[in-house]
Amino acid sequence: MEETLQDKITKLLEDAAAKAIDPTGGVTRLLYSKEWVDTQYALKEQMEALGLQTYFDEVGNLYGRLAGSGDKDETILTGSHVDTVKNGGKYDGMYGITAGIMALHYLKETYGSPLKNIEVVSFAEEEGSRFPEVYWGSKNFLGLGKQEEVALVTDHEGITFQDAMRGAGFDFCSPEKKVREDVSIFLEAHIEQGNVLEKEKKTIGIVNSIAGQRRYIIKLHGTANHAGTTPMEYRQDAFYAAAKMTVAILGRAKEYGSPLVATTGYVDVKPNVGNVVPGETEFSLDVRHTDGAFLESFSEEIQGFIKEIADECGVVAEVDMWMNELPVPMDGKLVSCLEDVCKKQSLDYKLMHSGAGHDSQLIGRHIPTAMLFVPSRNGISHNPEEYTAPEYLEKGTYALADAIYQLAYQE
Amino acid sequence: MEETLQDKITKLLEDAAAKAIDPTGGVTRLLYSKEWVDTQYALKEQMEALGLQTYFDEVGNLYGRLAGSGDKDETILTGSHVDTVKNGGKYDGMYGITAGIMALHYLKETYGSPLKNIEVVSFAEEEGSRFPEVYWGSKNFLGLGKQEEVALVTDHEGITFQDAMRGAGFDFCSPEKKVREDVSIFLEAHIEQGNVLEKEKKTIGIVNSIAGQRRYIIKLHGTANHAGTTPMEYRQDAFYAAAKMTVAILGRAKEYGSPLVATTGYVDVKPNVGNVVPGETEFSLDVRHTDGAFLESFSEEIQGFIKEIADECGVVAEVDMWMNELPVPMDGKLVSCLEDVCKKQSLDYKLMHSGAGHDSQLIGRHIPTAMLFVPSRNGISHNPEEYTAPEYLEKGTYALADAIYQLAYQE
Repeated sequence: MEETLQDKITKLLEDAAAKAIDPTGGVTRLLYSKEWVDTQYALKEQMEALGLQTYFDEVGNLYGRLAGSGDKDETILTGSHVDTVKNGGKYDGMYGITAGIMALHYLKETYGSPLKNIEVVSFAEEEGSRFPEVYWGSKNFLGLGKQEEVALVTDHEGITFQDAMRGAGFDFCSPEKKVREDVSIFLEAHIEQGNVLEKEKKTIGIVNSIAGQRRYIIKLHGTANHAGTTPMEYRQDAFYAAAKMTVAILGRAKEYGSPLVATTGYVDVKPNVGNVVPGETEFSLDVRHTDGAFLESFSEEIQGFIKEIADECGVVAEVDMWMNELPVPMDGKLVSCLEDVCKKQSLDYKLMHSGAGHDSQLIGRHIPTAMLFVPSRNGISHNPEEYTAPEYLEKGTYALADAIYQLAYQE
Repeated sequence: MEETLQDKITKLLEDAAAKAIDPTGGVTRLLYSKEWVDTQYALKEQMEALGLQTYFDEVGNLYGRLAGSGDKDETILTGSHVDTVKNGGKYDGMYGITAGIMALHYLKETYGSPLKNIEVVSFAEEEGSRFPEVYWGSKNFLGLGKQEEVALVTDHEGITFQDAMRGAGFDFCSPEKKVREDVSIFLEAHIEQGNVLEKEKKTIGIVNSIAGQRRYIIKLHGTANHAGTTPMEYRQDAFYAAAKMTVAILGRAKEYGSPLVATTGYVDVKPNVGNVVPGETEFSLDVRHTDGAFLESFSEEIQGFIKEIADECGVVAEVDMWMNELPVPMDGKLVSCLEDVCKKQSLDYKLMHSGAGHDSQLIGRHIPTAMLFVPSRNGISHNPEEYTAPEYLEKGTYALADAIYQLAYQE
């Protein structure tokens, strides 16, 4: 019996995972590690075996190319990142690479040479799991990698970025290097990493926007007191204030509803002893929305809640907004193209935003870009439990292939 | 110039602290440690130098006695505990001992022999700082010490209670030992360890009740999710639920007001990462009130809040009430006696409850008992910063002495 596309994708994902299985049973493939090098070279072999021309750029982004027969040097790029978080899953990043490889192979086998070039990319890094640096792959693709910012940063073992990079056989792009001008479109397939498609029983998500995000650390300074001897009215309870702020801000976010999300994921109470009124509390706030103006106005509401509650509770609040990323809309024509493809294939799709950051977030600011999502079981990602059914992996790949067909084979 | 009572008390407190100063500049005098032994023997010498007969009981409670000249073998007992928390202050416990010693000395010098016996006690232990055992001193005074429960418990260095005790030259009470029946009254002077007297500009607090307390650990089980990709309505956010519960319960406690206090001092969020919706949150709840029936009904309100909010947030709550101590009213006649004394001395006193536990909490269940408080600067205790002005230390001692005079010298 012939191997189906499902089988082929599953095998490619399993082979890639096998190069980087960690003791938890998850996948750990950190930038420029042995597992990373092994996986990139294995992918290169796979691409070649399927008839693609391959090459690495300076920093270690791997490309597999199906050259076009048309006159113009124009390239449709697809793919995603090869690195994982520590103890991650088999699908995050890698699905977009395998879907790209399989889409190119399928198109070549079915339709022969395209008019425009098609390339699949396995970006070196996106997660920031080894070094305090994210989007290293797509940044360098766009000519935005900054040697001076990363060369001497170290991983948790004290190895510098530069040494890790050179040890893997790569190096910084030379300053003279020109940015590629042939790439006119980027399409990224990815697992959803959320539970919306599953909850709503959809097969494909077509991303029309990547949410902007603001991240805060809020420090509250109150007074530590004896829990038994300090009447409620004489307290400056830093945790009570933090709890009130969380309830106010997250409660307001629930009222607004999707696409707004607000999360307090990190909390540090001091001295953190049951019979002492907390003197200090630090907590995080992560806020995301697809509309930059809305994010701005919601931030003002947040500041208002914090000020009001700090005053009421007699605590001093320090608010540090350490991240402020604007939303990135996806390209309207590409979104329509993906919709047409899904309709033609009778796929039950959902137009949605991405609440997570992706290579498309960076690339979408420079090149027309779109993404498609496949469902994540229980919404789980960044975890060994990450899973997407082979049926969805296949449907996503066919949708991606058909979209590329429309873009690269049709005039 | 003659040494004033202020000077004498201050010197006694400083001498005791000097035997147990720790590297933080605070006092660490853990049960049966070298510092503890040194201090108890130094106190014994002091008592003897001031004309008291001294003796230790089996477990190391130290008594200083002024024998009565009357016919009945009846004893008025005063004092407090000699041990401290780790990195504690100079006043907690030790003030009650030094006030007792100085009161007895003052009475003897001024009025000669009393009718009833008077004793000052330096209880071996109250804090539970070295071993997981509290009130070891007063428990043994009452014949309630349980050898089988503590003999083999260990401190954080692995030393058993039994070895520590024997190393200090003491041992468990023999089972045949009879409980003292001569002690008819216990009076304990203590620092307030709260900020009520200071806020209300009072000199003395007369305790009419020691609050009961219930302590809980509440564990919430939700679902960890990606903070960007999980819409608010699809979350089971364990920390958001914990924050709502804290706001509801502490907010309700504020509405009821004193003597009710409710505190969440300990919070543990998992995985505790800014961009992950918390899957688990554990938090403490410490609730105190002087009325047992009120504590009971407030506990039912708490259970109601927890159930309602857990259901609303889609989390599962486990509630463990691991401590339930009933309130202990102080003896009405003794409280009146202390009030009379304060009025006579024109001391600006406040009738109040104690939100903290004390030896009087245990003893008050068996013997008519009362306490008097002196102000704590900024309400700080269990800390090297603990401080009470010498003026207050003296006023508290005179009030204690006068009360003992009424009880032991008058027919």
